[in-house]
Amino acid sequence: MNYQKILEDIQEQIQPELIKGNVADYIPALKNVKENDFAMSIRLLDGQTFNVGCFDKKFSIQSISKVFTYSMALKIYSKELYSRVWYEPSGNPFNSLVQLEYEKGIPRNPFINAGAIVTTDSLVTHFKDKNIAIKQINDFINNLSKDNILIDEDIYMSELKTGHRNRALANLMKSFSNIKNPINNTLETYFKHCSFMMNTQQLATTMLFLANHGTDPLTKEEIITSSKAKRINSLMLTCGHYDASGDFAFHVGLPGKSGVGGGIVAIVPKKMAICVYSPRLNSKGNSLAGTKALELFTTITGLSIF
Amino acid sequence: MNYQKILEDIQEQIQPELIKGNVADYIPALKNVKENDFAMSIRLLDGQTFNVGCFDKKFSIQSISKVFTYSMALKIYSKELYSRVWYEPSGNPFNSLVQLEYEKGIPRNPFINAGAIVTTDSLVTHFKDKNIAIKQINDFINNLSKDNILIDEDIYMSELKTGHRNRALANLMKSFSNIKNPINNTLETYFKHCSFMMNTQQLATTMLFLANHGTDPLTKEEIITSSKAKRINSLMLTCGHYDASGDFAFHVGLPGKSGVGGGIVAIVPKKMAICVYSPRLNSKGNSLAGTKALELFTTITGLSIF
Amino acid sequence: MNYQKILEDIQEQIQPELIKGNVADYIPALKNVKENDFAMSIRLLDGQTFNVGCFDKKFSIQSISKVFTYSMALKIYSKELYSRVWYEPSGNPFNSLVQLEYEKGIPRNPFINAGAIVTTDSLVTHFKDKNIAIKQINDFINNLSKDNILIDEDIYMSELKTGHRNRALANLMKSFSNIKNPINNTLETYFKHCSFMMNTQQLATTMLFLANHGTDPLTKEEIITSSKAKRINSLMLTCGHYDASGDFAFHVGLPGKSGVGGGIVAIVPKKMAICVYSPRLNSKGNSLAGTKALELFTTITGLSIF
Amino acid sequence: MNYQKILEDIQEQIQPELIKGNVADYIPALKNVKENDFAMSIRLLDGQTFNVGCFDKKFSIQSISKVFTYSMALKIYSKELYSRVWYEPSGNPFNSLVQLEYEKGIPRNPFINAGAIVTTDSLVTHFKDKNIAIKQINDFINNLSKDNILIDEDIYMSELKTGHRNRALANLMKSFSNIKNPINNTLETYFKHCSFMMNTQQLATTMLFLANHGTDPLTKEEIITSSKAKRINSLMLTCGHYDASGDFAFHVGLPGKSGVGGGIVAIVPKKMAICVYSPRLNSKGNSLAGTKALELFTTITGLSIF
Repeated sequence: MNYQKILEDIQEQIQPELIKGNVADYIPALKNVKENDFAMSIRLLDGQTFNVGCFDKKFSIQSISKVFTYSMALKIYSKELYSRVWYEPSGNPFNSLVQLEYEKGIPRNPFINAGAIVTTDSLVTHFKDKNIAIKQINDFINNLSKDNILIDEDIYMSELKTGHRNRALANLMKSFSNIKNPINNTLETYFKHCSFMMNTQQLATTMLFLANHGTDPLTKEEIITSSKAKRINSLMLTCGHYDASGDFAFHVGLPGKSGVGGGIVAIVPKKMAICVYSPRLNSKGNSLAGTKALELFTTITGLSIF
Repeated sequence: MNYQKILEDIQEQIQPELIKGNVADYIPALKNVKENDFAMSIRLLDGQTFNVGCFDKKFSIQSISKVFTYSMALKIYSKELYSRVWYEPSGNPFNSLVQLEYEKGIPRNPFINAGAIVTTDSLVTHFKDKNIAIKQINDFINNLSKDNILIDEDIYMSELKTGHRNRALANLMKSFSNIKNPINNTLETYFKHCSFMMNTQQLATTMLFLANHGTDPLTKEEIITSSKAKRINSLMLTCGHYDASGDFAFHVGLPGKSGVGGGIVAIVPKKMAICVYSPRLNSKGNSLAGTKALELFTTITGLSIF
Repeated sequence: MNYQKILEDIQEQIQPELIKGNVADYIPALKNVKENDFAMSIRLLDGQTFNVGCFDKKFSIQSISKVFTYSMALKIYSKELYSRVWYEPSGNPFNSLVQLEYEKGIPRNPFINAGAIVTTDSLVTHFKDKNIAIKQINDFINNLSKDNILIDEDIYMSELKTGHRNRALANLMKSFSNIKNPINNTLETYFKHCSFMMNTQQLATTMLFLANHGTDPLTKEEIITSSKAKRINSLMLTCGHYDASGDFAFHVGLPGKSGVGGGIVAIVPKKMAICVYSPRLNSKGNSLAGTKALELFTTITGLSIF
Repeated sequence: MNYQKILEDIQEQIQPELIKGNVADYIPALKNVKENDFAMSIRLLDGQTFNVGCFDKKFSIQSISKVFTYSMALKIYSKELYSRVWYEPSGNPFNSLVQLEYEKGIPRNPFINAGAIVTTDSLVTHFKDKNIAIKQINDFINNLSKDNILIDEDIYMSELKTGHRNRALANLMKSFSNIKNPINNTLETYFKHCSFMMNTQQLATTMLFLANHGTDPLTKEEIITSSKAKRINSLMLTCGHYDASGDFAFHVGLPGKSGVGGGIVAIVPKKMAICVYSPRLNSKGNSLAGTKALELFTTITGLSIF
C-alpha cells in the first residue's frame, strides 16, 4: 500500500473536522497550542516512515505516558502488579471514585488515572527514589524513541498545582494501603511523566515494540516478552480511551491510547505503529480529528484487527 | 497447522480443569448436565471441521444467542439501534441496574442482559409479532448452522418463571420508554432464544460469517456487511464476557461470547470460528475449562489478534 | 391559641405560593384537579376541629397511605417486619434502585416506594388474599376517619397501567425473595391503597392516634402501642418527604408525610394532627404551598418538636 | 422526676452491655482508654446536675465537635453556608464519596466528615488564619463549658498522619472549588477540633444552649437564634449518627450526636442536655452502651420528642 498517499488523503478529508471540538483547558499550560494543528505518522516494522502535517511539532503526551510506565512495571512485577491494578474496562468516568471505593482501592486498569498512579507508585518503590524513577522512565522513552525527550516544566507545575482530583484518588488508595510511598513522591513522578513533550514521529517510533510482539524491530532488543506485549495491546483496545474505549474499538478497531494533549497512538500488530495529533478534543476527552483520522485509516486500508 | 492434533493436546491438558468450578444453578433445568463434559470444535473458512470431546451433544446456548439477535437487529436498524443500546463495556455486574438508571434506560451494550432485551424488543417491533419474531430468529440460526435448531421447553419455562431480575430490567427500561412492546411479549421472545439447544460443531459453523467479514463462507451469502461484522467482533472482544471481558481479551485475545450454559464461541478473523463447551463456570459466570482451553489455543497457535 | 385565626392568617399569607410549582402529571388522572386549591385542617386531641379552604374536597392521598399500611403491618409483625424493611433515611431518589440492589432487596424504610411495596406484601400474606387485604386497609382507614373512604378507579387503573418503575422495584425485590406473593397481587393492593380519596379534615382525624401515643383520642381505642406510635412518628420525621426529609425537619420541625396528590399530614405530639392540601408540587415532589403553610404554622405557634 | 435515681438505674441495667462492641482502633491514640468505662451526665436548664460513673474522666470528643463548628458557622454565614453544605441525611457510609462526586462536591450535611470539613473551611476563611480559627473554636467551647478545654496532641498527630480518607474528601471538594483554603490549613484545624478532650459533665453543659432555643440558660447569653438552634437540633435528629441516624431516632427519639471516642450528646428540648460515655462502639461506629443507655432513658422517662 502507498501509505504516503493514504496519509495525504486522510489529511485532506479531515480538514472539516479540525475546527470541531475544544482544546483541553483544565490546566492553563495545555491551552498554548495551535488549535487546528494536525499531524500523522506511520512507522513500519522495517523502519520505513511516513508523515503528514506538523509531525515534528512536540506536544504534551499526557496519558500516552501510561503505556510506557505500565510496560516498565509489567516487566518488573508481572503477577504482583495484577493484584494492585486490574485489567478490566471501568465503565464510565462518573464511576472513577465510586468503583475505587467499592473495590477497596484497586483500580480497574492501568489506563485510568487511579491505575496509572498505582503503576507509577510501583516504579517509585522499585527504583527506591522519585528522582531515579523519573530518570528511568525518561531513559526508557529515550531508548525507544532514539531521541532525547524532555519534560515541559510549565505543564508539570500546572498539574502539580491543580491536580486535586488525582490527589483525592491517591489519598483514597492510600487509605486502602494501595499507595506505598509518600503521596507527594508518587504524584510528582506521575505528573512529570505526563508532561513529556513528543511529536508524532517520535511516538510512532516508541510504539513499534508493541506492534512487534515486544521486541524493538529497529534494534532487535526485547523490551518485554511477546505475551506481555499482547496483553498491553489488549488493554489498549479495551481500556485505552476511557469511556469511549468501546466506541474506538467499534469504529477504528485497533489497540490505541489517547492523551488529553491531543495525541493518539495505535498499533497494527505485526505491521506498524501509528501516531496522530490534533489538539481539539471530543466530549469524551479524546482528539476529535485524531479519532476520525484513524477511523478513515482502517476503512481505507482494511487493517482493523477484526 | 495440525488443528486436530492441537485440539487433542488441549483436551489432554485441560483434564485437571474439568472438575473445577460449578454448573449454573439459578434455574433447575440448567443443572441436568454431565458436569465434567468437554467439547471443542473448529471450523475453517474453507469448510474443514475439527472436533474433540462430546461435540455432538447439545447444550443451552443462553447468552450466545445475543450474537444472533444483535446481528439481525444491526442488519435491520443500523444507527437507529445505537440510540437504544450502546457499544461500551459496562464495568461490573453490580452496576447493571445502577448504570441503567443513571443512563436513563439505555443499556451499555447488547451483550449484557438489559441490552439484549432491548435488541429482542426491536426484533419484536420489526416482525410485528412475538411468534413471528422467534420464528425468524430460529430461521436465522438454522440458515447459519445448516441444521434445525430447537428450543428446550423446560429451560424456557424455568426462565420464564424465575426471571425476576430480567423483568426488573425490562420494567425499568419501559419506564424510560426504551421497551416498545408489552413486556411479556419481549421477555417471552428473549427467554425463548436463550433456550435454543446446540452443540459445539453447530455453533462454530454459525459463527463463520463473523470470521469472514459478514459473508457465510460456505454459501457465499452476505449475512451482514463487512463493516458491521467487524463491529460485532469488536463488541465481542470488549463486552463478550461480562465483567471478565478484559480478562478474556488479556488472556485469550480473541473476540468471543460466552453463555452460562457452558458454551463459548470465539472468532479468528479471516481464519476460523471456534466453539468450546464445558458446563462448570468460574466466578464470573464463564465456562472455566472453556476459557482455559481457548487460552491454550492462542498460546499454542499464536493466533491472538494482538 | 386561636387556631382558627392562625389558619386564616396562614391562608392569607400563602396566597402568592399557590401559583408556584406544578401538579403531578405522571398519570393523567392526577391532573384533573383545580391547580390553585388550598385547604388546611387541625384536629386537637379533645376533638376540636379547625378548617380553612376547601377542606371537604377529596383528593388522592397517594403516599400518605403508607402511614396506614405501615401502622397495620407494625402492629401485626413487629420485629419480623424490621428484617424486611429498615428504618433509615435513604439518601436520594437517584439511589432508589442502587441501594436496593446493593442492600440485597431490603428497602431503606417503609416510606419510599420499595419499602411500602414490601409492607403491602406483608399485609397480603397476613390476610391471605389481595381482596381481603385491601378491604382490611379500607376498614382501618374508615375506623380512624369515622367515615367511608373510597378508591378512585381512574387513578387506580392509571397507576396499574403506567407503574413500570414500581414493577421494576417489585421484581428486583422478588429476585432477592423479599416479595412473597405473586407480584400482581401485591402491586394491585399497593396501587389501590394509593388511590383512596380523602379530604384534609378526614386525614387530620385519621392521624390523631399518632399524636396521642397510639390511642385514638376520640374512641379511646388503642390502635397500636405507645412505643410503636413514637417510632412511626420518628420515621415520618426522618423519612417522610423522600430526599427533602431533612429540609422538612429543618424548616417545619414536625413528623409529617406527603403524597404527590398534594396532601401533607403532620403530627404535634400530645397536641394535634394537621393536614394541608395544595396540589402544586415543588421540585422534590412535595406540596409547595403545603410545606410553606406548615413552616408558617410552626413559626407562628412555636410548636416545632425541637 | 428523680434523675439521680434514674441514672443509677440505667447504670445498673447497662452493665451487661459494657463488655460488648469494640473500641475505635483506626488511630492508635484512641485505643488508650479503659474499655469498660461508663459515665452519664444530665444538666437541667436551671443548672441542676446529675452524674453517674466516671463523669470527670476526659475522652476525645471527635465528631461531637462538629456541633460546635456548625453552630459557629451557622451564626456567621446563615444562608451562604447552605449552598456549601446541605442538611439532608446521607444514606449510607458507602455513599460518602459517591454522593460527593455525584453532587458536585456539596456534602449532604455538616455531620458527615465531608460536611464538617467544609464547615471548618468556612471558619478558617472567616477568621483568616488557621491558628486564629482553632483559637476561636476553643474559646467558643470554653465559654459554653465554663472551663478550659485542651487538645490531645497525640490524637491530633495521629489523625494528621493517618487521615488519608479525609484528605481524599478534601481534595475531591477542592476539585469542585468547595474548599477555599489550602487543604492543609483546613485539615489541621479540622483534626485539631476533633482532638479536644472533655468529660460528660462538660459536654452536657456545653449543649444546654441547644436545649434552650439558642440561649445559654446559665449565663442568659444568646449563642444563636432560636430558629437556628431548632435547625441544629433537627439536623442532630436526622443526621447525628451517620447511617444509624434513623435507628437512633427510632429507638431513642432525641436529637443527638455521637463521636467515635465513645461519647454521645442528646437534647431534650426545653428541659435538659445529656451526655453519655462508653468507648466500645457498635457496628455503625456509635457507642454501644451509650446508645442503649439513652434508649433506656427515654423509655423510663417518656421524654422522647415523639
